[in-house]
Amino acid sequence: MAKKPELDDFRVPFFNDGKKAEQFALDDFDPAVKPFSTGSKESDRARLAEIGAQLDALQERLHTQTRQRVLLVLQGMDTSGKDGTVRAVFHEVDLLGLRIVSFKAPTPVEAAHDFLWRVHAQAPAAGELTVFNRSHYEDVLVPVVLGTLDDAARELRYRHIRQFEALLAESGTTIVKCMLHISKDEQRARLQARIDDPNKHWKFDVADLEARKLWGKYQTAYRDALAATSTEIAPWYVIPADSKTHRNVMIAELLLRALVGMKLEYPPAKASLKGLKVD
Amino acid sequence: MAKKPELDDFRVPFFNDGKKAEQFALDDFDPAVKPFSTGSKESDRARLAEIGAQLDALQERLHTQTRQRVLLVLQGMDTSGKDGTVRAVFHEVDLLGLRIVSFKAPTPVEAAHDFLWRVHAQAPAAGELTVFNRSHYEDVLVPVVLGTLDDAARELRYRHIRQFEALLAESGTTIVKCMLHISKDEQRARLQARIDDPNKHWKFDVADLEARKLWGKYQTAYRDALAATSTEIAPWYVIPADSKTHRNVMIAELLLRALVGMKLEYPPAKASLKGLKVD
Repeated sequence: MAKKPELDDFRVPFFNDGKKAEQFALDDFDPAVKPFSTGSKESDRARLAEIGAQLDALQERLHTQTRQRVLLVLQGMDTSGKDGTVRAVFHEVDLLGLRIVSFKAPTPVEAAHDFLWRVHAQAPAAGELTVFNRSHYEDVLVPVVLGTLDDAARELRYRHIRQFEALLAESGTTIVKCMLHISKDEQRARLQARIDDPNKHWKFDVADLEARKLWGKYQTAYRDALAATSTEIAPWYVIPADSKTHRNVMIAELLLRALVGMKLEYPPAKASLKGLKVD
Repeated sequence: MAKKPELDDFRVPFFNDGKKAEQFALDDFDPAVKPFSTGSKESDRARLAEIGAQLDALQERLHTQTRQRVLLVLQGMDTSGKDGTVRAVFHEVDLLGLRIVSFKAPTPVEAAHDFLWRVHAQAPAAGELTVFNRSHYEDVLVPVVLGTLDDAARELRYRHIRQFEALLAESGTTIVKCMLHISKDEQRARLQARIDDPNKHWKFDVADLEARKLWGKYQTAYRDALAATSTEIAPWYVIPADSKTHRNVMIAELLLRALVGMKLEYPPAKASLKGLKVD
């Protein structure tokens, strides 16, 4: 009997795992598999709704906290489904404790600071669940692929990221990082669909085709970034994402596990309110 | 046959309507009526889901715009249902084009600026639908009730608000402002429910009871603020809100009407993409 898949089978080895981290290869992960699917799309959706309700209940507790916070980082190639993940995974979760931050190319003011300046400003506040839809990782991946960052500068950014994430984690933030892993063929189909539907043209940028030409370089850059920044306090997971439903379920499961692990409780009842009657 | 209720029956007369604005009285609006209910809670919920789907479709179009934006302002006494409105009305709407801003008491840095400084910073960007959960109106209502703002200063703030909202509207922002109107009895029941459930204690602040003692003063302050700042480009609506379901449906109907009125369209298809095949 095959071993039942576990979420941690998809965790990128920790940076300080030496050999394991060195041997980590994205190619070892098939984007088309659906290890956390329940078997049918219908029951996957039911499972997602079930997790959604649990996430909502846990997030209400998180929202009452004065210290704990959660950061979910979503990274992936164009069309890998970051937007769709946000929509599906958080459908049942109360908007009030949730914040979605979509990072674009840095503005001149942002670019005039260190690369973590604008990111730090968006870190989750106490009681908040924040999603980074793209993130500080773009500021390593893109310049590495375009050749504008040399090896020493790249390694320095990795170290700065590890230290920055440690600051967040050691200040009460639970961090989960997901790389939405799609195949080059799946990306072709999704880009083509955007081109073929005029109402999707606004989503399409010819620059996406330029990035696609650099597919291999991006895969290498991702591999290196993941291996260099997967840590115990901020682990990376590779999400097989050719199936949208599988992607949603797996990310929801990861987030649920993280929130359950936080042992969130309501603050203790206020004794002063016992028996109080409102006039 | 009674006249079918219309949304504009609940619009506060425009500031420059002279006599009408002077005669406007909150007491003329019964918080317990349900004029936009379809008759049963079940069909109201179905209607809300239907509007939600329409709002989602319209908001996708809004999201493709480079100029238009939407601002929904929610005001009301404690427990009037601002949080619940956000959750219910936007349940079907994509998080990515939506931003919820909850204003608290000003921080020292915020208080060191004019009262619209922190509000302006949160104004919706192009393509965005922003909800103010409380707003700049708190900065008139609270000091008026506490007696820390004299008549001249209050009138000056009203004028500053009208001019600020004109700036937003004339820069492409559609503004809808809702006052969630509940009865004093309904507030008692809702506050009591928070006291009676220990897991709701975190939502309860004894200061809420202090504000409740000033109920009459707050109603007067609301009346004056609404009459002074309801304008053609930023109208106020009084929402009968003792029924949560009615409140949700009515606010959703108002927002739907506003978005439909914007005649949102997708940007024209890009001719350059016609027949393009992705490699």
